Amino acid sequence: MDPALNFCSVCAAPVVQRIPAGDSLPRGICEACGTVHYRNPRLVVGALAQWQGKVLMCKRAIEPRYGKWTLPAGFMENGESVEEGAIRETLEEACARIELGPLFAMISVPHIHQVHVIYRARLLDLDFAAGEESLEVRLFDEADIPWGEIAFRTIKRSLKHYFSDRKVGVFGIHTESLSLPPSDTLPPALRKASDDASPPDSHA
Amino acid sequence: MDPALNFCSVCAAPVVQRIPAGDSLPRGICEACGTVHYRNPRLVVGALAQWQGKVLMCKRAIEPRYGKWTLPAGFMENGESVEEGAIRETLEEACARIELGPLFAMISVPHIHQVHVIYRARLLDLDFAAGEESLEVRLFDEADIPWGEIAFRTIKRSLKHYFSDRKVGVFGIHTESLSLPPSDTLPPALRKASDDASPPDSHA
Repeated sequence: MDPALNFCSVCAAPVVQRIPAGDSLPRGICEACGTVHYRNPRLVVGALAQWQGKVLMCKRAIEPRYGKWTLPAGFMENGESVEEGAIRETLEEACARIELGPLFAMISVPHIHQVHVIYRARLLDLDFAAGEESLEVRLFDEADIPWGEIAFRTIKRSLKHYFSDRKVGVFGIHTESLSLPPSDTLPPALRKASDDASPPDSHA
Repeated sequence: MDPALNFCSVCAAPVVQRIPAGDSLPRGICEACGTVHYRNPRLVVGALAQWQGKVLMCKRAIEPRYGKWTLPAGFMENGESVEEGAIRETLEEACARIELGPLFAMISVPHIHQVHVIYRARLLDLDFAAGEESLEVRLFDEADIPWGEIAFRTIKRSLKHYFSDRKVGVFGIHTESLSLPPSDTLPPALRKASDDASPPDSHA
């Protein structure tokens, strides 16, 4: 998540937490130069790209979730649109060229301050390959999806919605919010790191 | 937009711009403690709430666009979902209670590092009033919308899509990206501040 906010990024003076005039939440405020340091949720954008009914997935080469499978997705960058971000991430992580289709899922993950946005897409050719953050990139039939090895809850939800919609022949747009799973339902090794307690790429 | 990134918020040492190993873009990096300071787009979330065909709008009591009309919308906060943010902003700016409907518009504004997300909604009662950031809150019939006095391009687009969809009886979900208007098409007073060059609330 965001680094500690001890000092002002503008002038290096100490930052205090205080509710600014006209605001309703405490913000990090520099008492030397007056800068208010807002912190807001980040967008993670990606694509569910298909080729003849198969879905393009990446096996992660980085933490968190090293070795788990995901859709190509990552943090949206300043200066790009959501759509450009989804296309860029697919190129970076799967070296794959896609034609973006409609918005498919927008899933808030409030406890980690993220919103995950997934577009449907059509893979344009089979010249994909593992990008720097992937160990392997593969096309999966529905029957072969490694459900027990999916890196993030938002990705699992997106895939479930996709196959469920495909069955009935109508693709919806799925907006929802994931709450923190109760820690006592998680196996001990995961109590500090639920399936969405970490971002989908190294930008932590 | 984001404040200058001269110093590390963790340890106050100077920050340099450099491409981290395995990354492709320059980031602000603290050479003392190693923290990477990512900067990413922000989400602005709001609602297009209707009552008997009329749309709820707010006249801005703050800069930018003081005195111009907008839909209730503002920066999404950490710890909330997109939907919670849209409901909260409507309560704060219009003191209005709504039942949120489907997602309606997601509009990227890359040059100011923002994504604006608007939901359709139903106003639940007529006890609305100007919140602290509004001069006035009103219900507008389509014929009375103050088209020349709309605060932001994303809001104008959302309203246009709304009335156009309503006419044909089918509401879509509108995803698009607004590019920077060429500066020579803007009147001189606006050359430094196009209709979306500033955020819709005081969180600059």
